[in-house]
Amino acid sequence: MDAPAVYRIALDVMGGDHAPHATLEGAAAALQRHADLHLILVGDESRMRPLFKHYGLIGDMAERFEVLHAPSVVTMEDKATCILKDKKDSSIRMAAQLVKDGLADGVVSMGHTGAAMVASKLVIGTLDGVDRPCLASVMPNTQGRPTVLLDVGANVDSKPEHVAQFALMGAVYAEEVLGVARPRIGVLSVGEEDGKGTELTRATSQALRELDINFGGNAEGRDIWNGNFDVVACDGFVGNALLKSAEALAEGILHGLKDSIMSGWLSRLGGLLAKSAMRRFVKKLDYAEYGGAPLLGIQGVSIIGHGRSDGRAVASGIRAAVLACEHRINEHIQASLHRMLPQAAPVGDGGNAA
Amino acid sequence: MDAPAVYRIALDVMGGDHAPHATLEGAAAALQRHADLHLILVGDESRMRPLFKHYGLIGDMAERFEVLHAPSVVTMEDKATCILKDKKDSSIRMAAQLVKDGLADGVVSMGHTGAAMVASKLVIGTLDGVDRPCLASVMPNTQGRPTVLLDVGANVDSKPEHVAQFALMGAVYAEEVLGVARPRIGVLSVGEEDGKGTELTRATSQALRELDINFGGNAEGRDIWNGNFDVVACDGFVGNALLKSAEALAEGILHGLKDSIMSGWLSRLGGLLAKSAMRRFVKKLDYAEYGGAPLLGIQGVSIIGHGRSDGRAVASGIRAAVLACEHRINEHIQASLHRMLPQAAPVGDGGNAA
Repeated sequence: MDAPAVYRIALDVMGGDHAPHATLEGAAAALQRHADLHLILVGDESRMRPLFKHYGLIGDMAERFEVLHAPSVVTMEDKATCILKDKKDSSIRMAAQLVKDGLADGVVSMGHTGAAMVASKLVIGTLDGVDRPCLASVMPNTQGRPTVLLDVGANVDSKPEHVAQFALMGAVYAEEVLGVARPRIGVLSVGEEDGKGTELTRATSQALRELDINFGGNAEGRDIWNGNFDVVACDGFVGNALLKSAEALAEGILHGLKDSIMSGWLSRLGGLLAKSAMRRFVKKLDYAEYGGAPLLGIQGVSIIGHGRSDGRAVASGIRAAVLACEHRINEHIQASLHRMLPQAAPVGDGGNAA
Repeated sequence: MDAPAVYRIALDVMGGDHAPHATLEGAAAALQRHADLHLILVGDESRMRPLFKHYGLIGDMAERFEVLHAPSVVTMEDKATCILKDKKDSSIRMAAQLVKDGLADGVVSMGHTGAAMVASKLVIGTLDGVDRPCLASVMPNTQGRPTVLLDVGANVDSKPEHVAQFALMGAVYAEEVLGVARPRIGVLSVGEEDGKGTELTRATSQALRELDINFGGNAEGRDIWNGNFDVVACDGFVGNALLKSAEALAEGILHGLKDSIMSGWLSRLGGLLAKSAMRRFVKKLDYAEYGGAPLLGIQGVSIIGHGRSDGRAVASGIRAAVLACEHRINEHIQASLHRMLPQAAPVGDGGNAA
């Protein structure tokens, strides 16, 4: 299967705290950035169209996107499963349906995380051989490289075979999309020594140790940040707690530091002089630079972003979708699972995205 | 039982990366700070004594401590359980034995965490009615108040009744030692809504919801830092991962920011002007200000600190031990467990420390 010249990404324009403004702003930025991108803007047409001009979605660019009207939107008060019954006409459900129907290669949503996951898992469907899709988060580490932490919330109460699959899918993502050669894989645990951890971590490590991968054994919480591992696999419960804790802590530190610097005239002057250096560093940490988390293991590409995403974060999320398509992530995931766990994954048409 | 005028704390002088220097420095600082402190310095006498003068452990102060010679020390290569057989004469084991024998009210160690936990749990023993002791970490939150996260590593694969006890013990610690009135308790989960989480979190929440406590339901990773909860309870696996991740992330951010500021002359000048303001903030985050983590639920006081503790962190650890004694933490824990879970906790002499 040759890569298509153009990747068709369905954007849930109504999803996110700042939708449809942030999503349309991000859409325009992404179209400018990626020549091989075609967008399908899914949402309330009457709310989207009046904004096109403002966000520059006009002229030549208008050829590179189309609009699909979706009458309803999933709100934070809705249950994730509403898209299966009451809200089949919601923007996230209709965007996912495009992937299912082969009309789009991927979907990007900054809306209701649960609904986006249900839409991806149940409407688009999982890849053959994948027991459970998982959400991967790309973290910047102190070595200036990315660390893939997964699962960060698609599953709880995972079994060892699930976490082992998360690790393999994360390694494929690190290698193929992020360009990390032979990524070092770790299983998150409470100590470096082999025996340390839970029944889950020990059984997961045992399964991974037998495979032809660069397996580094147990990783600890600190290893998410120090570059000792390229991929850190865990159950979605702990990954989700880690991700949310890290976001809040990083923000708290930067705000606290700013408040402290702004509290005196001398330090305020100092802060002014150091501002661009501090900004440069903060940008490295900024979730908006990373955009969304890829949901790995589904029959297509799905990127799930932060509800509070701004235009830059939306553009980064679309970028993640384009990269996943360009690097044929699903073909590689299926090949890896087939090679590593031949009993689980039949080789075949690995979904429409890759 | 009246509070004794003086609290006798056994210090594992040989424990920690910078022992015996950091421990003796911390011992001297703690003796100066706490008039009601009497220290028992447990360690290799031939290595300790020559340093006493250097650290000011002389003159009047010499009346306020004594020395107990311990021939061996637990190293990082040792198994935690070595103190039960081969290394009964190690400084941590002998320090714990003093508490067991009623010769000390508490023990403080910056050494091998596992060995310190085994010594506390098995040599000193658990409080009546406590199924599993747990390690509590006091985190500074963005509201300028402390959040107690527990368990951060004493147990893995905990059951709901264990995590519920962790929550109650953490609440007692927050109220009695940290002075938080009617602390708001949360169970760490992956979403705010009641149903979100694992079998463990749902069952824990159900148990806590029935009690006369200020129970706030599910907490998320971010709630460790935002002050929404005073106490966040979880299994030791996830708590340990969260603690180690947070330490490494905070350090990474502060180092990265410093490097960025030092990379240009203008920002370096700015950094110089803002230095004291930044230091003031960093101090708030500094683990050395918090010292050690109290192991709650044992027949005495046990504070387990970071291996890399400096003198200031050791002094903070000793301070935590003194505070736990002063506030009769164990009496309150037993009363709380008896009141809340009458089937579990007989009221009685609640250990020798409190």
